[in-house]
Amino acid sequence: MINGYAAMRAGGTLQPYQFAAATLGPSEIEIAISHCGICHSDLHLLDNDWGVSSYPLVPGHEIIGSVSRLGTEVTHLRQGQRVGVGWLAGSCMACEQCLSGNENLCRRSQPTCIGRPGGYASHVRVDARFAAAVPDVLASESAAPLLCAGITVFAPLKRQKLKPASRVGVIGLGGLGHLAAQCAKAMGYDVTVFSTSAHKQDEAYSFGADRFVDSRAGGALSGAAGSCDMILTTAPVDLSWPEYLNLLKPNGHLCIVGASPGEVRVPAFALIDGQKSIGGSAVGSNGDIAEMLQFAAAHKIAPRIEPFALKNVNDALARLRHNRVRYRAVLVMDS
Amino acid sequence: MINGYAAMRAGGTLQPYQFAAATLGPSEIEIAISHCGICHSDLHLLDNDWGVSSYPLVPGHEIIGSVSRLGTEVTHLRQGQRVGVGWLAGSCMACEQCLSGNENLCRRSQPTCIGRPGGYASHVRVDARFAAAVPDVLASESAAPLLCAGITVFAPLKRQKLKPASRVGVIGLGGLGHLAAQCAKAMGYDVTVFSTSAHKQDEAYSFGADRFVDSRAGGALSGAAGSCDMILTTAPVDLSWPEYLNLLKPNGHLCIVGASPGEVRVPAFALIDGQKSIGGSAVGSNGDIAEMLQFAAAHKIAPRIEPFALKNVNDALARLRHNRVRYRAVLVMDS
Repeated sequence: MINGYAAMRAGGTLQPYQFAAATLGPSEIEIAISHCGICHSDLHLLDNDWGVSSYPLVPGHEIIGSVSRLGTEVTHLRQGQRVGVGWLAGSCMACEQCLSGNENLCRRSQPTCIGRPGGYASHVRVDARFAAAVPDVLASESAAPLLCAGITVFAPLKRQKLKPASRVGVIGLGGLGHLAAQCAKAMGYDVTVFSTSAHKQDEAYSFGADRFVDSRAGGALSGAAGSCDMILTTAPVDLSWPEYLNLLKPNGHLCIVGASPGEVRVPAFALIDGQKSIGGSAVGSNGDIAEMLQFAAAHKIAPRIEPFALKNVNDALARLRHNRVRYRAVLVMDS
Repeated sequence: MINGYAAMRAGGTLQPYQFAAATLGPSEIEIAISHCGICHSDLHLLDNDWGVSSYPLVPGHEIIGSVSRLGTEVTHLRQGQRVGVGWLAGSCMACEQCLSGNENLCRRSQPTCIGRPGGYASHVRVDARFAAAVPDVLASESAAPLLCAGITVFAPLKRQKLKPASRVGVIGLGGLGHLAAQCAKAMGYDVTVFSTSAHKQDEAYSFGADRFVDSRAGGALSGAAGSCDMILTTAPVDLSWPEYLNLLKPNGHLCIVGASPGEVRVPAFALIDGQKSIGGSAVGSNGDIAEMLQFAAAHKIAPRIEPFALKNVNDALARLRHNRVRYRAVLVMDS
C-alpha cells in the first residue's frame, strides 16, 4: 500500500489516503519519494479549474526519490538510484512528437497526477524513461522544484537560441520567475525582472537580475519599450498584452509559461511591425529535463524553498493560495 | 523632372503629376522604371488608413527598372543594370538590426513610397544597397510583384527553418497567397491552401497546393485540426484566430503577413498547450530579397499578373479594391 494525501472532492482539504499501487509494468519503476515540490498547477487540479481532475486526487509532480522497484525491462536505472519526475509520467513513444524527442507534446502523454496518484505520497510508479537521474551535487529539496518550475523556464530559453548578449525579461518573481532569472543569467543573458511587488527588488538582484522594473510604477513599462529579445511571462494572471509586447525588440518573442486564465489580445499590426511573436511553452522533454539538471548542477541554480512535512501539506497549500510562499514550497516525506 | 501619378488627397483618384527629383546622394542610384506592381498596401496608403500618408502621394513599392544614374560612391551596380526595389528605399545601416542584416527591422528605415515618391512613375531614387540585381531569367513583369508580395511570404518561410517533410498552410489565395503556395512547394513542403473562395480550388492546385480547404464549408477547419507545422495568413482580414490556431501541430507557428486590421485574440492556454506561437513578419532584408530572387529564378516562381498601362492606374486600383485582380496587377511604364 502507498501512503499519501488526497483531496476527496474539488476544493476539499487534503487528508491521509492509503491506496494500492498499480501493477508495475515492465518498463516502469517505483520510486520511494523523499521530496515533492508544490506547484501552482496543483491548486488548479485540486479545484478542478481545468475540468480534468478526478477524486480522490493525490497531487504532486515535482518528485525526487530513490528507485525502489524496477520493471523487468528497465536496464538504465538501478535500485536505490536518485531520480526526479516532473509533469509527465509517460507518453506514447511512437508519435511524430515522441519520435522527435518532444514527449511533452505527445497528444497521448500521461500527466503524473491527473487520473493517477502523484507525488504527495510515499511512492509513485512511472515509465522509467520519464525518471531523470539527479546529479549528486543537487540537494534533493532543491532539485524537486526543478522538475516542473525549473524545466518550464529552462526549455523555452534553450529553444529560443538567443545570441550571447541578448536581453531577457522575466515577468513575475515567484516559483517560476526566480528560477527563470537564475537560468537566464547563467546562460549569459542580461536579465530584467518585471514585478508588481516593488519590495522584491533586492531579491530579484540576488537571483541574478541586472535590472528590476516595478511594473506598477507610472511610465515604467513604456520606459522599457524595445528592450527585450525575449520575455518569459511566469505570472499566472492576465496581462495588458500590448504593453508587454511593446517591451520587445524587433524579432522579439514573448513566451507564456504561467497559466494565464484568459485571452491574449494584441493588435495584429503590433505583431507584424517589428516582426514579433507570442507563444506558449509546456514543461519540457525528457532530454530537456536531463540537460536542465546538468545545467543547474553546473551553475548552482537552486530554488529558494520553504520545507513542509507531508502532514502539514494543507498549511503549505494555504500559504501558496495567499501568494506567501518564498519561492517554492517543498514537501519532505520522512520528516 | 519625373513623370508619375499621384493622389492629391486621401481617397482621391490618381492623376498625372510631374515633380523634381531629389538630389542624388553619393550612395544612391536613380532607376528608370519599367514595371511597378500594385500592392494592397498602396490602397491603405492612398486612403491614409495608417495615418502615415502625405500628399501628393505617388504610391508604388514593387519596382523593376534599369539603373539610369549612379551616385559617386556606388560601385556594385552599373549603368543600365536591371534592378528591383521593394518596400524599403533605405535604412540607417548603423543600428543593431541593420548590423545584423535585418534592415527591414530598422526603426529608422525609409519606406519607398511614404514621405517620398514611389514607383508609379518614370524614375525613382533609392539607396543603392536597397536595389537588388534581378536574375536574367526573370521577366520584369513577373519580377516586380516578387519585391513585396514575394519577399513577404518567402522571408518567414525561410526564417522558420522547417523540416523537409513539413506541412504548410496558406490562408487566402490572392497576391501573397498564390506566391506563398509556390514558394512553400518549391521548398519541398506539403501545402494546404485555405480559402473562402471555393472556385479557386483548381488554381490553388496549379500553384502547387497539395490540398484545398474551403474554409466556409461546415466542419472543414475542424477536420484539418493539427495538420500544419506553419501557417501563413495572407488575407488582410480578421480571422477566427482560435479556429486557425487549432490547425497547427504541436510546436506550430502561425505567421501573419496580411495586414489584419483588428486584434488577434486567442486563449493563452491554446498557446501553452501544444507550445504554439503567433507572430508577424514584415517584408524581408536586403539579403532575403537577393536570395528570394535567386530562388524564384531557380524554381520558376512567378506571379500570375494583370498588366496595366500607367495611364490606366485608376482602373487597376478599382479592380484591386473590388478583389477582382488575378493575382497581381502590374503597371507597365512604357506601354
